[in-house]
Parts: sequence; C-alpha cells; structure tokens
Amino acid sequence: MVMQKEEAMDKSRDPAVQQMIARAEAQNVTTVWDRYAAMTPQCGFGDTGLCCRHCLQGPCRIDPFGEGPREGICGASADVMVARGLDRAIAAGTAAHSGHARHLAHTLKKMAMGKAEAYAVKEPGKLEAVAARLGIPTEGRQEREIALDVADAALADFHEKDTPVLWAATVVNPERAKVLADLNLVPKGIDHEVSEIMHRTLYGVDADPVNLLLAGLRCGVADLAGCWMGTDLADILFGIPRPTVSSANLGTLRADAVNIALHGHNPVLSEILVGAVGAKEEAARAAGATGINLVGICCTGNEVMMRHGIPACTHSVSQEMAIMTGAVDAMVVDYQCIMPSVVNVAECTGTRIITTMDIAKITGATHVDFSEEAAAAKAHEIIDQAIDQFRRRRNTPVEIPAVKTPVVAGFSVEAIVAALSGIDAEQPLKPLVDSIKSGAIRGVCLFAGCNNVKVPQDRNFVRMARRLLRENVLVVATGCGAGALMRHGFMDPANVEALCGDGLKAVLTAVGLANDLGGPLPPVLHMGSCVDNSRAVALTVAVAQYLGVDTHQLPIVASAAEAVSEKAVSIGVYAVAAGLPTHVGVMLPVLGSRLVTRVLTDKVKDLTGGYFIVDLDPDSAADKLLAAIDERRRGLGLG
Amino acid sequence: MVMQKEEAMDKSRDPAVQQMIARAEAQNVTTVWDRYAAMTPQCGFGDTGLCCRHCLQGPCRIDPFGEGPREGICGASADVMVARGLDRAIAAGTAAHSGHARHLAHTLKKMAMGKAEAYAVKEPGKLEAVAARLGIPTEGRQEREIALDVADAALADFHEKDTPVLWAATVVNPERAKVLADLNLVPKGIDHEVSEIMHRTLYGVDADPVNLLLAGLRCGVADLAGCWMGTDLADILFGIPRPTVSSANLGTLRADAVNIALHGHNPVLSEILVGAVGAKEEAARAAGATGINLVGICCTGNEVMMRHGIPACTHSVSQEMAIMTGAVDAMVVDYQCIMPSVVNVAECTGTRIITTMDIAKITGATHVDFSEEAAAAKAHEIIDQAIDQFRRRRNTPVEIPAVKTPVVAGFSVEAIVAALSGIDAEQPLKPLVDSIKSGAIRGVCLFAGCNNVKVPQDRNFVRMARRLLRENVLVVATGCGAGALMRHGFMDPANVEALCGDGLKAVLTAVGLANDLGGPLPPVLHMGSCVDNSRAVALTVAVAQYLGVDTHQLPIVASAAEAVSEKAVSIGVYAVAAGLPTHVGVMLPVLGSRLVTRVLTDKVKDLTGGYFIVDLDPDSAADKLLAAIDERRRGLGLG
Repeated sequence: MVMQKEEAMDKSRDPAVQQMIARAEAQNVTTVWDRYAAMTPQCGFGDTGLCCRHCLQGPCRIDPFGEGPREGICGASADVMVARGLDRAIAAGTAAHSGHARHLAHTLKKMAMGKAEAYAVKEPGKLEAVAARLGIPTEGRQEREIALDVADAALADFHEKDTPVLWAATVVNPERAKVLADLNLVPKGIDHEVSEIMHRTLYGVDADPVNLLLAGLRCGVADLAGCWMGTDLADILFGIPRPTVSSANLGTLRADAVNIALHGHNPVLSEILVGAVGAKEEAARAAGATGINLVGICCTGNEVMMRHGIPACTHSVSQEMAIMTGAVDAMVVDYQCIMPSVVNVAECTGTRIITTMDIAKITGATHVDFSEEAAAAKAHEIIDQAIDQFRRRRNTPVEIPAVKTPVVAGFSVEAIVAALSGIDAEQPLKPLVDSIKSGAIRGVCLFAGCNNVKVPQDRNFVRMARRLLRENVLVVATGCGAGALMRHGFMDPANVEALCGDGLKAVLTAVGLANDLGGPLPPVLHMGSCVDNSRAVALTVAVAQYLGVDTHQLPIVASAAEAVSEKAVSIGVYAVAAGLPTHVGVMLPVLGSRLVTRVLTDKVKDLTGGYFIVDLDPDSAADKLLAAIDERRRGLGLG
Repeated sequence: MVMQKEEAMDKSRDPAVQQMIARAEAQNVTTVWDRYAAMTPQCGFGDTGLCCRHCLQGPCRIDPFGEGPREGICGASADVMVARGLDRAIAAGTAAHSGHARHLAHTLKKMAMGKAEAYAVKEPGKLEAVAARLGIPTEGRQEREIALDVADAALADFHEKDTPVLWAATVVNPERAKVLADLNLVPKGIDHEVSEIMHRTLYGVDADPVNLLLAGLRCGVADLAGCWMGTDLADILFGIPRPTVSSANLGTLRADAVNIALHGHNPVLSEILVGAVGAKEEAARAAGATGINLVGICCTGNEVMMRHGIPACTHSVSQEMAIMTGAVDAMVVDYQCIMPSVVNVAECTGTRIITTMDIAKITGATHVDFSEEAAAAKAHEIIDQAIDQFRRRRNTPVEIPAVKTPVVAGFSVEAIVAALSGIDAEQPLKPLVDSIKSGAIRGVCLFAGCNNVKVPQDRNFVRMARRLLRENVLVVATGCGAGALMRHGFMDPANVEALCGDGLKAVLTAVGLANDLGGPLPPVLHMGSCVDNSRAVALTVAVAQYLGVDTHQLPIVASAAEAVSEKAVSIGVYAVAAGLPTHVGVMLPVLGSRLVTRVLTDKVKDLTGGYFIVDLDPDSAADKLLAAIDERRRGLGLG
C-alpha cells in the first residue's frame, strides 16, 4: 500500500490524477505512464541530440561517449547535429504559435468583412491600443475598418516586407529593440524565419553551430511575435481577461451533467461553445441531465477560464485521466498537445472525441469541420453530440475524484495594472516597482510550459513555486504551468498566508484590499495560456520602461519546469532573447554538444543577457533562479 | 588487386573517383565512404521512419518487427510517426528550393531598383513570357518596371494572398490545375505551407496519417512552385540555357591553372565569378599559372555548364575527391549539398574552402560575405584568394585523373523546342509527339537527384539509363543525376550509336541534322540543376497540352535513382502530384508504416495519377518504369 502510494507519487502529485491512474490500472487501460515505461530506456542518441535524419544517407548517430563515429556521414559534427536539431524544434514551436495567431487574424478579418457574424470586437480599447502601436490610424474610423487593418497587419507579419515583423519590433522597449536589431535578431517575417530554419538545417547548408544558434534565436523572436499576436487578437475578439473566480481539477466534472471538455489552444471555437451552451440547456435537461458543464483542458481551458471562469478539469500529461472518469461526454479538441491516445481511452468510456480543425484530425475521432462562417451551427452540432453521448452513458457508473481547488484567475497585464491602480492611480507600476526596490518583492518568476511524463506530474512546479513564494518572489504562471499550480491551491487567495513570505504577502494583501477584494490576491497570478507568455514579456517590458533600464537587468526569471512541446523550446528561446534567465526542468536534447550547451547556458548571456538554466532538480533549480534574481538586484544596486 | 578493384567499384563506378579514393586511402584521409562504413549498421528505427523526436517526452521509437511499444508516448501510431517525419522532410526540401528562388527574386528586385549593377536582364523574352503568364502587363513598359513586378509577384508567392501560389497555379495545364484544386493541393503560399507542415507535425496536432500525407502533397506542389520560380528567375537574369559543348570529370582540372570549383546551387554568385575571371587572368599568370580554370560541382556546376559551358569536375558524393587531387585552389560554395567534411579534406591539401552565404557557413572555412550590391568586388576577393592559394601549392605535386568526357548540355525546354523547330517550325512539338505515337520514342524518363553513399556511385543511373535508352526511351536529366550520366559519356553525341535503340537514335539524329549539328543530339538531354526539374514538368505539361490530355496519361516517368537530400523527397512528391510514376532508388524512411507505404506507392494514384516506385535494384526498377510507360501508352491507345 505504501509502495503503491509511492508509485502513484512517481507519476503524479495530483491526488485526483492518482485516483484515476489506479482506475486505469484496474480497468487495464493503457496510459501515458505505461507507454513511457514501455519506451524506457529511451534512445541515448536522440536524448543527447546526437541523431540526424535530415537526409537519406542517414540516419546518423554519434556516440556521446566518444565511441564510434565522431561525425555524421556528411561530416556534420556533434555540434552541428545538435544545433540543427534544436533549430528545427524552435521552428516547429514558432510555426505552431503563429499558426494559432494567424487563425485568429483570419477570424478578425472575416469578422471585419462581415463574414463571421458569431464574432465581434469585444474589446474596442485593445483594438485601438494595438492599432496605435502598429501605426494604424484610429481617429474617426469605424471599428471594422480598424479591425481589418489590424488583421491585415497581422497577416503581413508572416512574410518579408519593408518593415520587420511589427509584432516583434514594436512590442519591446527601445533598449531591447536595439539589442535585437544589433544582433540581427529581428525577424523579417514569421513564416520566413521558419522556412529559413528549414533551409539552413538541410543537408549541406549551415554547418556552423553558432550561426545556426543565432538563426534559432531570431526564430525564437519570431515566436514571441506569434505569441504576442495571438494574445492581442484573442483579447480584441474575446475580451481582456480580468480577475475571475473559478475552480480546478477533476472534481469540476459533474456526474449528472453533460460534461464537455474543451481541449487544445485556440479560443476561436471554444468561445462560441461557451456562448452556445445556454441555448442547449433545455435539450440537455430533456436528455435527463441537470445541465451542460463546460470544463477546460490545457490552454483552451486557460483561455475560457481567463475570460469566463470556466473551470479547468485537468492539464497536459493527465488529459487521458479526464476521460478515465467516464464522465466526459465529449472532448472537443482544436490543436496542439492533444495526445492521439485520447481516442483509445475514449473507446473504453464512450467519450466522443471531436476534432474540429482541418490541420488536426485524429484517426478514430469524430470530425466536425469547424469554420468561423458557420461557427454557431457547428457549436450546436458539437453540443448535440455531447448530449447524445450523455444519453448513452447516463446509467453507467462514473468515478469523479472529489478534488477541486478554488482558483482566482484572469491576470492579464491590463488586469494587473488595473489592480495596482487601486494603490496608485497615477503610476500603477510604482507600487510594484517600489516593492521590488524595497525587497518586499525580491523578484518575479514566470512558470510556464507543460507537464512532462518524465517528471512526477506537478512536482517541479509545486516545489519550486513553494520555495520562491516563501522567498518573496512574485510568481506568475501560464499554460500548463498555471494548470499545475492551480490544481495545487496556488491560485487560491486563502493560501497566501501559508505560502508567501511576509513581504510578498503584504503586497498581495495591500493590492487585494485596495481593490475591495476583502483579502489578498492569490499567491500565483494566472496570466493565461501558453501564447500568453507574451503577457509575461509585456510585464517585463513595462517594468523595464518604468525603471528606464533594459529587460535583462531586471530580477525577472522564467521556468518551464516540466516542458514537453517544441513550443516550450521556442518560448524558452524568446525568454532568453528577452534577457531572462530561463530554467528548463527536463533535459533538452543538446547535451551531445558541449559547444551548444555552453552557448545556451552561458555564452548567449554576452549577447542578450538571458541564458538557459537546465536543471532537473527542482530544489537546486529554485536556488539558481534565486541566485539569478539576487545577481540582478545587485546589478541594479538593490542589494 | 581484383578485390581492390571490386571494393572500389562498390564505392563508385567513376574511374576518376576510384583513383582518388585510392589516393585518400594512401594518405589516410577520411572520406564519406569511410564515415558511412563507420556508421553501419545504421539505426533501424530511423531507417524505417519509426523514430520521433518531436517533443521532449521522447525520443520514441517503435520496433518495426512488433516487439516493444507499438505507439509513441503520446499515443502516436507508427503511421502517424512515419507520416509526420516524411512531411518534415518535404517541408525542408520545399524551404530550400524556394529559399534559392527567393534569393533570385531579391536579386532581380535589386537589379530592377538599380541597386545591383552587376546584374541585368539577360533574357528579355523570358521576362515577358513569365510576366504574361502571371498577368503582369508588359506592353509599352520598361524592362525594369516589368522585372520589378515579376520580382514582387515572386516574393508575394511566399505568403497567403487573394490568389493561390501563382508559380503553381499558372504553370500547369488546366486539367492538372483542376485536379490539384479539387484535391485542395494548390498551395496558398510557399512559406505558408512549410510553416503549416511544421505546425501540424508538432506534438499533439495532426494524428491522421492520410491527412498528414495530403498536406505533404500540397507542400510538394509548393516545392514545384519554388523550383519553377528558381528556373524562371535564373533564366531571366542569366539567360535561357542553349546547347553548349563542355566536358566533365576530374580531368577538367588543370595542374598549371588556378582551379576554382563552384559548388552549391544558386548561380547568383557563380555567374559573377564567371564574368570576373577575365579581369583576373593576368594576376593568375603573374602568380605562375597558365590561367584561371573554373569548374563546377553539383548544381552550381550545372547552372554554369548550362549557360557558359563551364566543365563539371565532379558531383554529389564525390565532392571531397575533387579536393583530393590537390589541384583545387578554392572551392567556392553557396548552399545545399555541401558536405561539411570538405573542410577536413581541404586541411590536407591547402584548398581554400570559401563560404559565401550568411545562411551557410562552415566551421573552419573562410567566409566572404557575398551580397548582390557588392557582387563584383566580392568575386574579385574570392578569385584573389584562389590565386593566393595557387601560389602556395604551385610546387607541390597534384594528382589529376586523366578522365574527361565530352558533354553537350543546355537543353532547356526552350532549347528543345527550338531544336524540334528545325523539323517543324509551325508545330515544334509535333515531331516529338509523333515519334512517341509511332513508338520510335517509347516514352520519356527524367533522371534527377543525388548520388547516395549507400549506392555505388552512378551505378543506378548508368544501369537504368543504359536500359531505357536501348528501349527507345528519351532520357532527360537534371542535378547530380545529370552529373552521373555526363561523367559516363551519356551526354556525348558520339555515344548515341552505342547506347540508343534504333527509334530513338533516328529521332536524335534527325533533330541533330535538322539543326546542322552534323550528327545526333546527345543520348541524354541535360535539362539543368535540381530546381530545373521544373523544366521536366514544363516539358510534360507542354506535351499534355499539345495532345489535349492530362499529364498523368503520358508515358513520362521519373527517377531519383540515388537520392540523398530532403529536396529529392519534395521533388519526388511534386512529380507524383504532377501525375508521374516516380522511382526512388534508395529506401525512404517510410517502411515502418504499411499505410504510408501503400498510400505513396499505390493509393495516391487514385488522386493524382502519379505514384512512387521504391526499388533498390536498378534492373528491376528499369523494368517497372518501362511497364509504367507501356501502361500509359496503352491508355492512350498507342499499344
């Protein structure tokens, strides 16, 4: 029994997930942890980046211990092989975030052209602010005209034009813009950079690892642009997130309701589903349900939680476990981070897996061909399917873990600034910066990224956040990093007392009280989905501008403590380009090259001021982040 | 001694290369064959496509024999894994060809804007023809204005706009355009398709292998666009190739000359070097040389051979062997297919390896930062370096194999049509089509692609071409396929008698005599570099239009008999999209998925009419291509 408990702890630190893992075992359902166990030992060549399949003479592999070949068949060194592989990961991550952003740009454009009536500009102020930043006139113009121009500017950022990528060049402080320009790190076009990476990593093109890494860094800046664009356009269409009360974990599922899990990343469909549920409640009740219960998974979940308080049922590595409850009637997916295995688990429970995007189908799933033009009809079709499935599963037993944590989410930069305005309406950043100066807040840490099956789920996030909060570090979180922390109570204001150091506690309480919340802000501020890492950069830029310094001087750090996706790699790269010490809590496939490893963890500091900290031990990683924060404090004369 | 000969034959069928391999062995210089031997046995997972490194939970691998895991950690099946990997290869190939084309578009634009005086429109007729095809007005306009519009249209083809990719949509016959449109295979933008592939192959996006393969097919069409654009723009700037006499193999090097090898793909620099040599001859003589001897390697070699008759010194897998002679003073490289190992071999000989492009540096090489704006000055700088190196190596012995074959090259579609006009000025394609109808020409085969170290160099090309020519198949060739055939005498008109069947011989002779050549055309028609596979598609389209049928009905086939580059994969894909039976003579990393293999080699036929024939045995591959030709002849009622 103790052993069992320990084994469960090795897989996940989330009790709800542990309960479902036991259920899966009892029912002989294969889960991600089983597949991981079956895959070990994993290939050491791939693990260290010393495997290359970029041409038909390969595959080539270099023994990291120096036995066997020391170069590929073409003569590529370990350094070249590792840098090429890393670059392609960055390109993939960039393509994904910007694909998401482009999708929203098309949505905005269709809306502006009157072709997508389900959509509207929910946030005219943000539309104007973004337009102004891009140099698009707003004075005396109709909202739709401005929206069309913003959408066109967004689409233009994908290719080379007379200006560089505007969502990169106009979003950072002038000092950082100069650093990037001087290093030739300002992307010409988002797709252009992706494509150039694919070209230069081809057989017989770039064979200079440093040149390759610089290109990867520029592509990372293109990824920042894609993320930022995604955030801007989602805010314009669906509203800027503001503090909202919600809840998290599998306990948000309801046995007696039609449970629809929204999974993926892009709010373009989920927003419509949220709006459509009301009209379908009666149909759900007619089917014997108490109603329709929308819950989120991964970043689609973050998007709808941030804007509508929709609860999050689980995240990342435990997505199969939501299905294991037997209570999810439909899992509606858009794209990114959807394990194809959900179809197999759903076979045991009857859950309808509904794919909705042309670029992301899954063999065995039901496909509903979503389009903005027919958004409402498609949303109804999806909900009908869920109701139909509820009817079928109604009398079969489900097992929903009684685990649910309170969450206060919705901390966009605008929301943070608004909250701080409660203390100083004139200079809202002043209370934050003053707290940093005084040491009440020692620094800021962003937790981002996924849950990786190689790490006991949430362990790194929880252990590191616990440590940093105690040390008065203001913690913000995005993506499944936010998911991990919310499921462990880090977004419950009631836990400030137990989790936060005195300085931080005082600040969170003062801001909360100034905003008539009757108590503190939550210990960790939820900034959004993984494209919303742009919000963390925006906060960094705002603080830098307020202080008149550059971003790399600030005591602000980042951590993707349990990263999985190539998107996490490209995000890490732009965090480094923005000057942040950036922790990664799983091994990046770069250890096969001492040169690449040294550039990423050290030499790049001379260029951008940022650098990677790769450390699998959450305790020592937290130490290193604290040391980085303190080093920067000293640099600013803050002692 | 017999053994030695056999071993040499296993590496290369080119006697000049064999001689240099022996020299390398004697001098303990490591070559590509040594590195290949050291790499075997190669990883079977990678070989079959059953390895995935698209996220940080991996690497994952699936045992093709069914032992161990049957799916990746995320649940990706073997089918998904293989399709994803293939798609990324197609994306990389597409990015490379179109990167080359974009480079030329920028050159044309700079020229048109008066910023690159070393360049001019050499072929006003082609400029007008391309402009007309794109719908750009030409009447009464200045050449520079038209050139600017063509350059801008080219650059616009990289991204989504109101029209699809023009270099795809406007280049094929209407029937084929409809097939592509109906299948949603017309790309929206070249970079757009590359980026979308990178997105959909990310962890947790597309998990439907057929959906993935269709996307790969569309990306392949984007590759056709990139290739075609590259050909068009190079012709506009540097002239349409016309028949020219040249020579090939290491015997084109001269011990007493400053030997400069032009290696890579893009003529943007090599054209300037060709023009700059005259002014430097005196300096070369002052250094004790008899002059400057430019020779080509790979496709840069093809480009300058096609337009200037510059001899080709070697190709592809034997590029190191050029250096082994000790006679190459400078190897000037642009990008693609340049083995980084050239730097190591050059260390032994003193050869200056000069990289010239920002996206393709090599550790240990000399970098000259080429730009169109300073093209002439950079060319002079490069030649000076070569002369300097000649001075150093002047008194050291070199070993240049006495192997040199005559070559007649330069068979662009325009040149072929012009030659056929000698027989029928009104309807130039009539004599070709009539010969096909009569059976004098049984069909047409394109040989393309690289030399792969896994195949005895040139074996497949030579054996297959020999067979097909005897069977009266008209053979055209591009890239290092052309290189292989030229080094074995297949482009020497004197060999028509020995190589060609009677029907083909009669046609080649009739065309030759009608053009006052005093003899036949060469047995194999050299159509250009690997971007010039577009010329082969153009010929196919022209024949289809003349006959009023679609391209997939024609007895035209293709073979990448010794493919290496991901570019060869994407070319193969567009050949299949164009409806051609397409042979690949090395294993594609797809065997791990029966589904993907079946789609590529069979099911895709129902969509585009084309399909892959993967066969490592050149004799049986030739049989299959002949059978495919005969099947199509029957389909056209030609018996």
